[in-house]
Amino acid sequence: MVAAEENPESFFAAAPPLRDADAVAARLGEFIARNSSAAGAGGGGRRIVCVTSGGTTVPLEQRCVRYIDNFSSGHRGAASTEYFLKAGYAVIFLHRRGSCQPYCRFLPDDSFLKFFDVDAESKVQVAECHAPVVKKAIGDYCKAIEGGYLLKLPFTTIFEYLQLLKMVATSISSAGPLGMFYLAAAVSDFYVPWDSMAKHKIQSGGGPLDMRLSQVPKMLSVLRNQWAPLAFCISFKLETDSDILIQKADMALNKYKMNIVVANLLATYKEEVIIVTDKERSTIRKMNKDEDLEMQIIKILSQNHSKYICGSTNGCVQSPY
Amino acid sequence: MVAAEENPESFFAAAPPLRDADAVAARLGEFIARNSSAAGAGGGGRRIVCVTSGGTTVPLEQRCVRYIDNFSSGHRGAASTEYFLKAGYAVIFLHRRGSCQPYCRFLPDDSFLKFFDVDAESKVQVAECHAPVVKKAIGDYCKAIEGGYLLKLPFTTIFEYLQLLKMVATSISSAGPLGMFYLAAAVSDFYVPWDSMAKHKIQSGGGPLDMRLSQVPKMLSVLRNQWAPLAFCISFKLETDSDILIQKADMALNKYKMNIVVANLLATYKEEVIIVTDKERSTIRKMNKDEDLEMQIIKILSQNHSKYICGSTNGCVQSPY
Repeated sequence: MVAAEENPESFFAAAPPLRDADAVAARLGEFIARNSSAAGAGGGGRRIVCVTSGGTTVPLEQRCVRYIDNFSSGHRGAASTEYFLKAGYAVIFLHRRGSCQPYCRFLPDDSFLKFFDVDAESKVQVAECHAPVVKKAIGDYCKAIEGGYLLKLPFTTIFEYLQLLKMVATSISSAGPLGMFYLAAAVSDFYVPWDSMAKHKIQSGGGPLDMRLSQVPKMLSVLRNQWAPLAFCISFKLETDSDILIQKADMALNKYKMNIVVANLLATYKEEVIIVTDKERSTIRKMNKDEDLEMQIIKILSQNHSKYICGSTNGCVQSPY
Repeated sequence: MVAAEENPESFFAAAPPLRDADAVAARLGEFIARNSSAAGAGGGGRRIVCVTSGGTTVPLEQRCVRYIDNFSSGHRGAASTEYFLKAGYAVIFLHRRGSCQPYCRFLPDDSFLKFFDVDAESKVQVAECHAPVVKKAIGDYCKAIEGGYLLKLPFTTIFEYLQLLKMVATSISSAGPLGMFYLAAAVSDFYVPWDSMAKHKIQSGGGPLDMRLSQVPKMLSVLRNQWAPLAFCISFKLETDSDILIQKADMALNKYKMNIVVANLLATYKEEVIIVTDKERSTIRKMNKDEDLEMQIIKILSQNHSKYICGSTNGCVQSPY
């Protein structure tokens, strides 16, 4: 039997309600309606992908000082968003607050100020060596925003993330097979249910701390079966142990009926991924150090999405590639 | 009896060794020697403060996918660093990687790209409305770096943080009472000892997860008694419950022999702090919304540091204020 806190309905019922839920729903509805009715790159409506990116947090206290976090810079989601936009998709970028953003991946880690010069007329400008990259990024970013192809929605906690994902999924379902989910976020597997959480900061000084974490309900099944049954779904599987990687990817494919699972290892995720479908496994490697692995990944996914649309009742649409 | 993992020596013996420890030690030694021998603002050697900033993480797996984190943007440490530099201190900024940086506090949360314009000659420049702030920040930052008054050392985990703090403290002790610690970092109270940590990613699917966390050894005592016995020490106390705040601050003052404890509540820490010494408590409030609370805090601390130096065997030095 599944414990109450591992049940999707109980999870949503007990979660602290999303702030600005109505405003988010309105922006989302407008974005999807506008892009669905626009002409896509290969005829038909524009394809819409929800890219999830960065890690979710699990608060350990209601007035939160401590939380469990998942390792994720959000670099893959940000880079993928750029390539999806280039391929003609409208993108809902569901991202962790403060994580890596599309068109900002070139930023230095440590100091923003190293980017600037003050010139003779004492105008602040981007240092000569960085200028071409920044100029291209600004151009591409403005095009995406002004064209209305990019909607950014931020989250921090697992509670915010799953409520937003549900809203996006139930909205995107109107696009049928033109909708896609690219689930690159590092989502918490364990959490502390809100009503069993400490209200104040947990005090130290009394010896070791024992914690019991509940499993987060497996929402991939709900997404696939209820929220957006016709969407093309891609999930990610990140492991540290290569011995179990493919087995876990196959399981996600079968159990959650994903169309594709992108499998990767923590030690090599920047250089190599394995694209797993029910028919084949193909390993994709970075060809040179300046190339983004995401360029190849998005190309393959977009082609597979085309075939999927083709095979669906909505008829055949060419891949923009 | 204290458990083995709560003993400082056992903690350091079992921690994964710091990368680049030798290079860090060399930079630190050079920084402290140079600034100690320089003339300070009020005569005598230059004062040196170690500002700790941002939260430490506790990995839950050796090949880390999940970790426990502490809520802290690093804004207080970054702002305080600016005011310490302005007051003539040399600053060792021991900060969480990716946290808020001195002179970069004005940056927008979401998109860096909103900062830029491309002008008629297609030069990338900072948008007119942001230019004055950015120009001042670049000027102040360059002055601090070129003058050799600012040394930035990053950490992520509790293991890195405590090893770096020990290195800084044992080096700074050569400056005697001219040394100061301003311990604003949100340091983990509980951790998983490295050798009892899961090697690979913890798998979900088997029901709830039980965890036992050990207490992190209380290093404030060791800092005070062994590493830097003559330094002027300020620690922070952040609570969510106002009923226990002052009691906890008094305890830190007595138990760890801090010179000053800065007490604050999570709900109001940006607007108000209480400065607690063994003689008095004074509440400091933000006077208007554009003022940094840190301006007042650093002024008071610097005055108290002057009195402390005065009362020590090294003789009397005026506050730069």
